[in-house]
Amino acid sequence: MDILQSRPSCKIGPSILNADLSNLHSACTKLLEDGADYLHLDVMDGHFVPNLTFGHPLVKCLRSKVPEAFFDMHMMVADPEKWVEPMHDAGANQYTFHFEATKDAAALARKIREVGMKVGIAIKPGTAVDVVVPYADLVDMILVMTVEPGFGGQKFMADMMQKVKYLREKFPDMDIEVDGGVGPSTIDACAQAGANMIVSGSAVVNAEDPKAVMSLLRKSVLKSLQEYEIR
Amino acid sequence: MDILQSRPSCKIGPSILNADLSNLHSACTKLLEDGADYLHLDVMDGHFVPNLTFGHPLVKCLRSKVPEAFFDMHMMVADPEKWVEPMHDAGANQYTFHFEATKDAAALARKIREVGMKVGIAIKPGTAVDVVVPYADLVDMILVMTVEPGFGGQKFMADMMQKVKYLREKFPDMDIEVDGGVGPSTIDACAQAGANMIVSGSAVVNAEDPKAVMSLLRKSVLKSLQEYEIR
Repeated sequence: MDILQSRPSCKIGPSILNADLSNLHSACTKLLEDGADYLHLDVMDGHFVPNLTFGHPLVKCLRSKVPEAFFDMHMMVADPEKWVEPMHDAGANQYTFHFEATKDAAALARKIREVGMKVGIAIKPGTAVDVVVPYADLVDMILVMTVEPGFGGQKFMADMMQKVKYLREKFPDMDIEVDGGVGPSTIDACAQAGANMIVSGSAVVNAEDPKAVMSLLRKSVLKSLQEYEIR
Repeated sequence: MDILQSRPSCKIGPSILNADLSNLHSACTKLLEDGADYLHLDVMDGHFVPNLTFGHPLVKCLRSKVPEAFFDMHMMVADPEKWVEPMHDAGANQYTFHFEATKDAAALARKIREVGMKVGIAIKPGTAVDVVVPYADLVDMILVMTVEPGFGGQKFMADMMQKVKYLREKFPDMDIEVDGGVGPSTIDACAQAGANMIVSGSAVVNAEDPKAVMSLLRKSVLKSLQEYEIR
């Protein structure tokens, strides 16, 4: 499955942070059946962020259960360099590291591509958007965090949409992802700013009808993408 | 369930490190049905050890599925102080920290008791056994690692049995746990040295008949405990 195309397309990637972590096999299978385009997997080590979720051994187990799913690893860890190979071996498709966590984003991006994964670069709310510009040729995706990373269920920071707009104007073909507080009430802002990869955690996972929520998110993004093409 | 009694009793605690981490609910339920006395849950943060497993959010999910199980948290993490409350909130029963990871083992042990968990103190193979002696009154259990912590499936270090013997002679009533490479071929050495809490990972989890393996481990320990009582 090639998640990236020459023009950015709409992809909905639920975050399983608030799902049943004691049975991610079942939670992920359900999300994929309900229309998820990819899975956004939140890796936290308790050092880069004050929460500890899971690492590559769990990802490897999960991979054996959902062999076709696209795994976007959101690496909220200190020293993101050290998990590149373990995550690739575990079956990760994309490795999204934080600009703030590395001293050499270019070297890290090259290493990720070398082992055969797609590259994502993420910025926290307090990080200026232009820091990622020099790495545009080295990455497949830019993730604009719309909450402080670390926990699910936080309030969407609407002022982050300026970053998304800036990136979309500068990089029409780049995948741009938003993550944090994204759901039915905030998707239009994301879509209009130009985001095309949509991470949604509790709004999907805790919904009575996750399929309907993902469908609603998709519609909003497709509408904005269409307007963008016409423009 | 009170896992500790005035005299040490035999308890078999499978480690789920090599189990299906994408469905720990099912793996743990099976182990408990097969006769596990407790679950030994390996928390690794990628800093204290070069592996990253899972943290309190997963433990919380698991607790809701197996409400009666005794959770012995083996905290292979830097800064073990910071997960005491989150792990208690998640439903942990015992918090086993590494002597090597803390600057103030006494304060940490007191904090763990204060929040209402039992206290375990662990030492790596390279750590001298007598370092734990000053904390004997503050802990419920001493864990003697019989491999370098970090990964399952390693070879048992028989020379660690000297540490177990030393501790059993000094503390006849203390729970003493062994962890690493423990299985049918190494249990007699552990039992004869005086270990009464037996962690066994791949030897149980990868067995065709985990129940039979746990039963065999138990028999060996009970035999040694009986001889010890007679002596």
